[in-house]
Amino acid sequence: MSAPAVSALIIGNEVLTAKVTEANGAHLIRRLRERGVPLQSVHFVRDEVDEIIEQLVLCRRRARYVITSGGVGPTHDDVTVRAVARALRREVVRLPEMEARLRSFYGARAMPPEALRMAEAPAGSRLIACDDTRFPVLACDDTYLLPGVPALFRVQLEAVLPTLPGVPQVLRQLFLDARESEIAAALDAVALGRPQVAIGSYPTWGDQADHLVKLTVEHPDAREVEAAVAELRAALGRFIIRES
Amino acid sequence: MSAPAVSALIIGNEVLTAKVTEANGAHLIRRLRERGVPLQSVHFVRDEVDEIIEQLVLCRRRARYVITSGGVGPTHDDVTVRAVARALRREVVRLPEMEARLRSFYGARAMPPEALRMAEAPAGSRLIACDDTRFPVLACDDTYLLPGVPALFRVQLEAVLPTLPGVPQVLRQLFLDARESEIAAALDAVALGRPQVAIGSYPTWGDQADHLVKLTVEHPDAREVEAAVAELRAALGRFIIRES
Repeated sequence: MSAPAVSALIIGNEVLTAKVTEANGAHLIRRLRERGVPLQSVHFVRDEVDEIIEQLVLCRRRARYVITSGGVGPTHDDVTVRAVARALRREVVRLPEMEARLRSFYGARAMPPEALRMAEAPAGSRLIACDDTRFPVLACDDTYLLPGVPALFRVQLEAVLPTLPGVPQVLRQLFLDARESEIAAALDAVALGRPQVAIGSYPTWGDQADHLVKLTVEHPDAREVEAAVAELRAALGRFIIRES
Repeated sequence: MSAPAVSALIIGNEVLTAKVTEANGAHLIRRLRERGVPLQSVHFVRDEVDEIIEQLVLCRRRARYVITSGGVGPTHDDVTVRAVARALRREVVRLPEMEARLRSFYGARAMPPEALRMAEAPAGSRLIACDDTRFPVLACDDTYLLPGVPALFRVQLEAVLPTLPGVPQVLRQLFLDARESEIAAALDAVALGRPQVAIGSYPTWGDQADHLVKLTVEHPDAREVEAAVAELRAALGRFIIRES
């Protein structure tokens, strides 16, 4: 009943060395959620071909789709196309459509030869048109290569999302005045009896919240969610402060 | 000349399903940076034993140290200790010191049996005292198991940082009024000639910035940095708006 999952590779030394505040990961998490597309994992890795290959191969074993962010520009540290091509066992080729778009972008101005690197792609790639930028999204074998620049990442992601199947989830939350260890036995019993429903338990810390633990109950089918919530209410009702 | 690196595993379905806004990853990136501890990669993974094991094994091949966040509480979705133990090929044992701390925490109150799960650890673990919380950091084979609750994660991280060797980096930045493709050839020449220096190139997008590209030059030794900056100035001086 769940849709195939996505994994994300956020590529770039600048993220891991705190030179930029990474924004694409959090944005991706939120947008996939809103579309009901399951997210398997997110990985921040360096601009290193071998490390990208290794992680991408692992991601593709766990998730149907992979979205990458970063490393697609024309400079020496942009290695994503090369790494993705090797992970997918494909050659790097120059896409005529991208080359034409680059030449049109430069028009009468001289185009530096390095600009053509941006027309390179794994062989067999397809281009997904993107209304809000002249550059389409590059996709190959269910791997989508998006740019790291946040404004452009966001625009291109909106072109990718309609191609990913999603199943919106129903979420209920219970806020409890109890420590996790006090409720663990009852909670485990409900969770083990309903393995299809995703039940989460999140303690607060300090005194910023009115509750000590938040329970989340989630499934695409509202009846499944309500049945689990009813069981939790029966077992833990005395601790429940509020629900949402 | 660089210190051994750290990888981070941020564990928890709540992060990947946008139920919480993840804060520990960004905090860790910044604090490691301030200490000059190299960060190899950051991975957000689900509360699934097999996936945690697989990712941890991969991280340990690439980085000397691993810091995990999350999944160390007493409920059904807290699987980090079990997964880390299996990845390290160690048994799960109950640590007498942690059990004593838990019993002292509960005092005269009845301690639920589930609370004792928080005394479990991979065999051979050591405890690192932490001034600002009663619970020490759990460490085993250079893997540090931190809690996911951000306030507690931050407190425990401060106890871990002094145990990690760091080499502070010198960073210079050049802000250019040029497209990446215009400077790619010159930039590549400098970067290839000085492979020991980390040179990054980051385009802006839209018109929020006064520059089109930011170049970063980084190395522990200021002389190496200045030598690379001098070469970049010679090659690209006409595009440089400002430096920092």
